Amino acid sequence: MKKLINDPQNVVREELEGIEQAHADLVRVSYEPNFIVRADAPVQGKVALVSGGGSGHEPMHGGFVGQGMLDAACPGEVFTSPTPDQMEAATKAVNGGAGVIHIVKNYTGDVMNFDMAAELCRSEGIEVESVLVDDDVAVQDSLYTAGRRGVGTTVLMEKIGGAAAEEGRALKEVADICREVNANGRSMGMALTSGTVPAAGKPTFELGDDEMEIGIGIHGEPGRERMKLKPVAEILEMMATVVVDDLPFAQGDDVLAFVNGMGGTPLIELYIVYNELAKFLKGRGISISRNLIGSYITSLEMAGCSITLLKASDDLLRLWDAPVKTAGLRWGV
Amino acid sequence: MKKLINDPQNVVREELEGIEQAHADLVRVSYEPNFIVRADAPVQGKVALVSGGGSGHEPMHGGFVGQGMLDAACPGEVFTSPTPDQMEAATKAVNGGAGVIHIVKNYTGDVMNFDMAAELCRSEGIEVESVLVDDDVAVQDSLYTAGRRGVGTTVLMEKIGGAAAEEGRALKEVADICREVNANGRSMGMALTSGTVPAAGKPTFELGDDEMEIGIGIHGEPGRERMKLKPVAEILEMMATVVVDDLPFAQGDDVLAFVNGMGGTPLIELYIVYNELAKFLKGRGISISRNLIGSYITSLEMAGCSITLLKASDDLLRLWDAPVKTAGLRWGV
Repeated sequence: MKKLINDPQNVVREELEGIEQAHADLVRVSYEPNFIVRADAPVQGKVALVSGGGSGHEPMHGGFVGQGMLDAACPGEVFTSPTPDQMEAATKAVNGGAGVIHIVKNYTGDVMNFDMAAELCRSEGIEVESVLVDDDVAVQDSLYTAGRRGVGTTVLMEKIGGAAAEEGRALKEVADICREVNANGRSMGMALTSGTVPAAGKPTFELGDDEMEIGIGIHGEPGRERMKLKPVAEILEMMATVVVDDLPFAQGDDVLAFVNGMGGTPLIELYIVYNELAKFLKGRGISISRNLIGSYITSLEMAGCSITLLKASDDLLRLWDAPVKTAGLRWGV
Repeated sequence: MKKLINDPQNVVREELEGIEQAHADLVRVSYEPNFIVRADAPVQGKVALVSGGGSGHEPMHGGFVGQGMLDAACPGEVFTSPTPDQMEAATKAVNGGAGVIHIVKNYTGDVMNFDMAAELCRSEGIEVESVLVDDDVAVQDSLYTAGRRGVGTTVLMEKIGGAAAEEGRALKEVADICREVNANGRSMGMALTSGTVPAAGKPTFELGDDEMEIGIGIHGEPGRERMKLKPVAEILEMMATVVVDDLPFAQGDDVLAFVNGMGGTPLIELYIVYNELAKFLKGRGISISRNLIGSYITSLEMAGCSITLLKASDDLLRLWDAPVKTAGLRWGV
């Protein structure tokens, strides 16, 4: 296992210390239970957004805490759900009296623990709305999931929902915006190599030197098909066809196109992927009105990529464009 | 070779097409010769900054073209200097009458070709100042370099020099600011794995499963020492000691600390590196007043990192904080 770490058992703790050292202007970090909140939390009268999940997907979610995006993030151990007490503590810390939204990726542990935390918070008088992300079209059920997995659309939801909250919309409205993002977002990923969970010490799965896996999950969960490596034009077509046909996106639609790196794939390749995606969508009569290209929802050092398309209304695009100031995404401020 | 590409010969061309498709609001891309300019180039009356070098280090340099940073970038083939005609065409395209600065990383091919381009431009009446970056403390001479290599400080110089130009400073002043950045910046890198140049099809160098190389260059040039993998605290101490002692940085200094990923190393590890760097500097009585953490000057999919420290004056920090709007770095707009 080749990683820039000390003790595999301390990876999350030391990462959090690094975030705390680096971004004291943006966030505060709490330990035991672990969570990250906006430096100015709680923001009185604003709906607060809380997300979380296993670590290993950085910058998601901790890198998205800040003005115009999340109010708090709860990092679990690597690829392991955070616990209800983390979620409860984070929810209390950011509650500004207007209610709290839990953004939950559809993995069994996350769903169960966020449900429990929401109940605890409600019993203490905090209004909580839960929003599920289940945008991965690759497989119906998966290793840790009943139904579709939650992947790239999460990033878009956290940005757009965060903007809606920032402009003062009410709890139900912000939750509806988040659900609209999920309803209009679709993703699919692929891997060239496996990442290695630090505590496991060996790759999660094995791929031959000439193999790739299409439809992989962000924890290395099996995808649709393992096959020989192909030119990226063919890989992109396989993925984008499923994504576009699933919603379905229609000729004349505007989309936000998100090309995501899995952690070990450099930007030069992501631009080549984006080039293929732009050509593919043009052929389908779909216009890209916004884009995001980079490694925003990763799987440790896995090489590979995912694509996410969000069918975009004017309201969603306006919220996407709104100012955001986080370690991972920043513009307008 | 596992990469998300089509033909290895077309990697740079297709990457540029991707950038053109993605960032038409920020840049224009020209082909044959290849260069990227700000969408609003030339900006009349503003000193223009041009940089360039081999591709494979993305987002550097093309991702740093835009308001408050570079006016143009010239991408060579992967790990190959761009040609003088690229640099000449880019310089002409961005010349707004106030002169042009060439930011040149200290590699033999880059230096020679930028010199030739500067002569060509001067003979056509364009004032050109060349600024060399040679901040890598690892080795004195290297595979493609007489003297020290230019690495991470380049990113900081492009940001700070770009801000100085944006606020209307004259050619000589902007060049002096850039030289001040180089004089006060020091870097060192290390690798866990090698990247693979697409046209070569195999890794540039081989490292054992338990080995790393300290002092590596961004083209995989040999560093100081190949050794067994160690905990990151020890790795960081080896690198930071050389960096800090070289300038020398002194107790009470303020620095901008830049932890850079080499392309295949995920953000979770970079935050752990940053945590160690913050502890190390605290022990030396050095304060971090700004930081940058991410993969900004890469070496294809190489796993590893580099650290750069810039001894920071108030003027440099103010220029660092100034608005920037590029694909790779953005804040304040």
